[in-house]
Amino acid sequence: MIDFSLTDEQSALVKRVEEFIREEIVPLERDPRQGPHGPAEALRREMVEKARAAGLLSPHGPKEYGGLGLNLRGMAVVFEAAGWSPLGPLALNIQAPDEGNTNLLEKVASPAQKEKWLKPLVRGEIRTVFSMTEPDGGAGSDPSLMRTTARRVGDDYVINGRKWLITGAPGASINIVMARTEDSSGKDLGATMFLVDMDAPGFSIKRILNTLDSNSPGGHAEVEFHDVRVGPERILGEVGKGFRYAQVRLAPARLTHCMRWLGAARRAHAIATDYARKRQAFGRAIGEHQGVGFMLADNETDIGLCRLAIWHAAWMLDQGSQARLETSMYKVYCSEALGRVVDRSLQILGGMGITDDTVVERIYRDIRPFRIYDGPSEVHRFAIARTILGRAK
Amino acid sequence: MIDFSLTDEQSALVKRVEEFIREEIVPLERDPRQGPHGPAEALRREMVEKARAAGLLSPHGPKEYGGLGLNLRGMAVVFEAAGWSPLGPLALNIQAPDEGNTNLLEKVASPAQKEKWLKPLVRGEIRTVFSMTEPDGGAGSDPSLMRTTARRVGDDYVINGRKWLITGAPGASINIVMARTEDSSGKDLGATMFLVDMDAPGFSIKRILNTLDSNSPGGHAEVEFHDVRVGPERILGEVGKGFRYAQVRLAPARLTHCMRWLGAARRAHAIATDYARKRQAFGRAIGEHQGVGFMLADNETDIGLCRLAIWHAAWMLDQGSQARLETSMYKVYCSEALGRVVDRSLQILGGMGITDDTVVERIYRDIRPFRIYDGPSEVHRFAIARTILGRAK
Amino acid sequence: MIDFSLTDEQSALVKRVEEFIREEIVPLERDPRQGPHGPAEALRREMVEKARAAGLLSPHGPKEYGGLGLNLRGMAVVFEAAGWSPLGPLALNIQAPDEGNTNLLEKVASPAQKEKWLKPLVRGEIRTVFSMTEPDGGAGSDPSLMRTTARRVGDDYVINGRKWLITGAPGASINIVMARTEDSSGKDLGATMFLVDMDAPGFSIKRILNTLDSNSPGGHAEVEFHDVRVGPERILGEVGKGFRYAQVRLAPARLTHCMRWLGAARRAHAIATDYARKRQAFGRAIGEHQGVGFMLADNETDIGLCRLAIWHAAWMLDQGSQARLETSMYKVYCSEALGRVVDRSLQILGGMGITDDTVVERIYRDIRPFRIYDGPSEVHRFAIARTILGRAK
Amino acid sequence: MIDFSLTDEQSALVKRVEEFIREEIVPLERDPRQGPHGPAEALRREMVEKARAAGLLSPHGPKEYGGLGLNLRGMAVVFEAAGWSPLGPLALNIQAPDEGNTNLLEKVASPAQKEKWLKPLVRGEIRTVFSMTEPDGGAGSDPSLMRTTARRVGDDYVINGRKWLITGAPGASINIVMARTEDSSGKDLGATMFLVDMDAPGFSIKRILNTLDSNSPGGHAEVEFHDVRVGPERILGEVGKGFRYAQVRLAPARLTHCMRWLGAARRAHAIATDYARKRQAFGRAIGEHQGVGFMLADNETDIGLCRLAIWHAAWMLDQGSQARLETSMYKVYCSEALGRVVDRSLQILGGMGITDDTVVERIYRDIRPFRIYDGPSEVHRFAIARTILGRAK
Repeated sequence: MIDFSLTDEQSALVKRVEEFIREEIVPLERDPRQGPHGPAEALRREMVEKARAAGLLSPHGPKEYGGLGLNLRGMAVVFEAAGWSPLGPLALNIQAPDEGNTNLLEKVASPAQKEKWLKPLVRGEIRTVFSMTEPDGGAGSDPSLMRTTARRVGDDYVINGRKWLITGAPGASINIVMARTEDSSGKDLGATMFLVDMDAPGFSIKRILNTLDSNSPGGHAEVEFHDVRVGPERILGEVGKGFRYAQVRLAPARLTHCMRWLGAARRAHAIATDYARKRQAFGRAIGEHQGVGFMLADNETDIGLCRLAIWHAAWMLDQGSQARLETSMYKVYCSEALGRVVDRSLQILGGMGITDDTVVERIYRDIRPFRIYDGPSEVHRFAIARTILGRAK
Repeated sequence: MIDFSLTDEQSALVKRVEEFIREEIVPLERDPRQGPHGPAEALRREMVEKARAAGLLSPHGPKEYGGLGLNLRGMAVVFEAAGWSPLGPLALNIQAPDEGNTNLLEKVASPAQKEKWLKPLVRGEIRTVFSMTEPDGGAGSDPSLMRTTARRVGDDYVINGRKWLITGAPGASINIVMARTEDSSGKDLGATMFLVDMDAPGFSIKRILNTLDSNSPGGHAEVEFHDVRVGPERILGEVGKGFRYAQVRLAPARLTHCMRWLGAARRAHAIATDYARKRQAFGRAIGEHQGVGFMLADNETDIGLCRLAIWHAAWMLDQGSQARLETSMYKVYCSEALGRVVDRSLQILGGMGITDDTVVERIYRDIRPFRIYDGPSEVHRFAIARTILGRAK
Repeated sequence: MIDFSLTDEQSALVKRVEEFIREEIVPLERDPRQGPHGPAEALRREMVEKARAAGLLSPHGPKEYGGLGLNLRGMAVVFEAAGWSPLGPLALNIQAPDEGNTNLLEKVASPAQKEKWLKPLVRGEIRTVFSMTEPDGGAGSDPSLMRTTARRVGDDYVINGRKWLITGAPGASINIVMARTEDSSGKDLGATMFLVDMDAPGFSIKRILNTLDSNSPGGHAEVEFHDVRVGPERILGEVGKGFRYAQVRLAPARLTHCMRWLGAARRAHAIATDYARKRQAFGRAIGEHQGVGFMLADNETDIGLCRLAIWHAAWMLDQGSQARLETSMYKVYCSEALGRVVDRSLQILGGMGITDDTVVERIYRDIRPFRIYDGPSEVHRFAIARTILGRAK
Repeated sequence: MIDFSLTDEQSALVKRVEEFIREEIVPLERDPRQGPHGPAEALRREMVEKARAAGLLSPHGPKEYGGLGLNLRGMAVVFEAAGWSPLGPLALNIQAPDEGNTNLLEKVASPAQKEKWLKPLVRGEIRTVFSMTEPDGGAGSDPSLMRTTARRVGDDYVINGRKWLITGAPGASINIVMARTEDSSGKDLGATMFLVDMDAPGFSIKRILNTLDSNSPGGHAEVEFHDVRVGPERILGEVGKGFRYAQVRLAPARLTHCMRWLGAARRAHAIATDYARKRQAFGRAIGEHQGVGFMLADNETDIGLCRLAIWHAAWMLDQGSQARLETSMYKVYCSEALGRVVDRSLQILGGMGITDDTVVERIYRDIRPFRIYDGPSEVHRFAIARTILGRAK
């Protein structure tokens, strides 16, 4: 039956997360251990310890490894609360790409792989990387353009290629790498995922990209694989199933981005609302001028609708649906609507909005890539259209 | 717990309504008994009989009078299904203003009033009118400008004034009239609702307005009250509580508009989708050009979000909340988003879209007033903004 | 040198047209000789006589036939002034399709054809038709799908096919018909334009379409050509050059639509502005609430930009440029922006906006097809994109 | 007569500027002498020397001081060409606030003041500051809230107050300061502009703000005036006329922002177009997918319309009009439309768009404040609305 109420457990947990973020994490937002390439590992570890102490670490992770084992709806409300601070997701260990990698490893990794990487990942002890996108015309929106190869040599695979926009590379421990696989005769075996050590011989970080956003520890790198040799125990799942696993990872990963950014947009909206109440111009508080008031109204509406969309897709995933249409639609909607919320919030703040005197300026920069990663709006709209056209009348 | 599943009863009922609309009502869409001022009473009665025979009449009405007694969530899914045809709501007796009047009478009328008007209304035997808006600078978005007066004379009240945009006046049986009440000395007693017979001496329909839309039986009239005298048994509820009752009526009434128009927008989208699959241009089906495909994708997203919004507010109302903020936000969103859906659908149809060869042209005209009635977007946004600003930080 | 001043002649002419429209034509807007399929011929002739008497008939027509012989910039300012009333273009004989046909005949017709058809057309004595679009998957946005054929038989051509959305057919005298031409052996000779009498044997009007708009005399028809035989003197220009001539007609025709609709949008804006000054709500004139005031501001801006765009393309055409990119861009912009202006104007009027108590309701219906005819926005955007991509870097 | 052609001089000059920017300035875009608070003075001087050598320095400045003495239309085409590089305006000495200050000093300063400050300013030897906006609820969109005071003491004035968002303070030579003036008895004399040395006793730069944009040398500062004493020769113009002079400065200053950002948006569009031609996805160049192609089309249209708007207002200013309505409308339009162009360009670049591998990321950050400074869109829309409402019918 249609129901929008949280369970008592969910309500209590959300309240604890909100309090934790407000009291423990927001005060760290101006911590100097942050730069254009994100928060330092020391800051991350400090926050993770706080979350562990508060019993809030890895709400999405399996209980056996110390996570809270929430379903998608539980994640929806908790991640939104965590997203209130740009540092919140990092503190709770639910930041991309680690959060999506947790899900992927839980679904696909072997018991030995889980013990080795999933366990410390859920415990917040290591960070991980996901290497898919390629520079110079390689794999991006269209993964069929993938150029990185893994060639079978004996029982091993030798990986060659370049990847970029690889989030969190410096400081991470393990790299989930997608490559076009060939057998020893060069025959195409499809895409496969490999677990590659960050210090594997032949692997190198070529450069850290300077980007608009700055909330990922380690930033975004361009990396190279030069004859990186891995054994068969480094195959994640099965050979040739890489794209299938990418889908397993992607639908919920898209949605968790929406959850976190919902929290961030709410924060921006709250700051703008507060300012609109206090700042006077032309004889009244600026919020009472409809020009500003209507922006607040549209923010509130966009935020409310994004939440409903997230809850709906989360419920579908919890029912076992892949929710591919819905996660595409809602990813487009949330990335665009929440982007508008942040843009309006900045606008309401006027000159202050473009300074880092509030966190809105940071959220404004950080949220822009959301319309691009995990599928730009254009690619999703194209996929949605094909789904619609392909439906039986 | 967050849940988006329908009950078995809801699912079964929706399926029956969909089938009924498709098989019994859609074929009547080109019935000649329709004109610029809406479907004729004979056509309405014919459809009502069909709905009665199908056991689908008055899904919102109390069971004691033959309605199905649905809660708001049940109404949400049924009204959407009925809205598929511009004639569907009339057939099921859930068209404005009758549907909102049913709700109002159920909540506020005396037992005798219910017996006299609610009963035949739920049975589809009579139509009703709601007279609030005034011409020439009187009550509209700002009800405080109301000029129609009801002056106490003995035990009776004498009503004088003009109203306009009064939907369904010709052919209706009873008129719920809002007037500024004065006691015999002229002292203001606040606004009161009166139940006025359509053939009451002194009442007259001055003209039927020519309007963009044409789906209301009787069209929209300008009416005059000239010394219309009513007894105390014609007071709806209590003297001076008119605006309070208007709020009782309005929040769900806004939402049921959303429900019906959701169905209509889905119809337009379905027709456009079908055309986009078949119509060829520049070497492929036009839907496969992203210019058209993206419009389909945005339609699908807007439709999905409107449904979630409606369900959410319906759930709140079912929990006893007034949901004033939510019904304002969602009324704005639905009226604008569903308007866009219909506009895009028309655009996809190209030249055919501006003809009545499909029902999209009619829906395009009929849906435009939705951004205006029951509060224009601007008035709602203003109210939403004040709610936001007034919240404790 | 960049200059936005009108010549003295232009200024004087505009003033005269404005006065003429205001005093002679606006009073006819409620003339009962108008219906869903446009103004009656008697009304048209009456208005044409008024324009002739005022020395304002056919400002675009060649002087030798009694026109004013304006260049495109002169047309821009005069047509805008005429568009102030939905009847203005008809009065001045500058309504589509006659206006575009005048241009086409002037550029392509033989002296004999000009004498026979251009002369009375410029004099306002006859109306003409342009038959391009086809029903049921034929020629539309993609003219290559044309199914109407003209087969050579002896010196004559026999035309077979159907056309629709043919504006102004009933009451017109001559029909410019585009057909795929074949020689007597069936070999494709390309598209050709023919001048076909409206009473030619084999030609019939199948039905008048019911459309959203109602400002074209005769409405929009579906017509049939069944073995319609025409002699070689009925070929317009040369065999096989039909599409080339269509381009000759289209670029300025697109722009003149913009000019006329600019005037109409200004009218809607003026009515909304006047209302926003007078109508009170919540303690002040509604225009002083920013919600309404901002709509007025955006109207003013859109109107101003459309005028600049029109003047720019008119200047280019006057210099001999085809201005294909510009007329595409500005057609998209004007059809969308002026549509927004009218939509906002209607919204400002509130409930009155959906009635025909003001002319805004009519303009709202009439302007919607502008985003579709002469190339829907999607087809123009596609063409613009290809132009951009094809440019040397 | 309506004319959109450049004079031969303008065309030749534009060509020289384009070449200069492309060959001399674009190569400096990655010069390391730039940081979050803008290009270093050394870099600025180097570029100014290049512009001087090319005969292109200070195209807006009076000829007697070595400028080119262009009118607004000349500035329009030259500034657009200079805006192609984020460093272009600095190189040509036409960056805000210096460019607007040049205009202000030329119009208002005394001969002695001109000799002292305008001359070196036009020669590119000094930078200047304009101090209007105040922190903490002082003067901003509503200048009537100004708190900074200048109190008459003998013949001098003693300035006290704080200002912020003061562009270019570190490294500048002279500060044009707006203050509320009082005579020695405390009587309000209205706002006055003063020329204050950057090393005046009592003046201090409190901090450099961290901002989204980074193209202003010196960044944006918060500054304090503590009993800063200036003599009467430091009054700019007359006492009490500060706001009037601000208007003199503002109308053209708004427009020159539009000119420069037009060039920047064209650059972003060109980079996106080039990428859209080359980058393959799903079987073709991404520009040939309409999703991307339509963005290019809208970019092209927005750019074209902004140029027409700028030319129109420039022409009006050249005719002696204040063009207050037009500069307000076009500032709103250009800031929003060019912002969209840059946003779409970034989106087309996908992942690369958020990196500084192209200059688009920088333009994206730098252009956002344009919707805020010199009057946020909301304040301009409010002013435009009042102008419309105040017009005689």
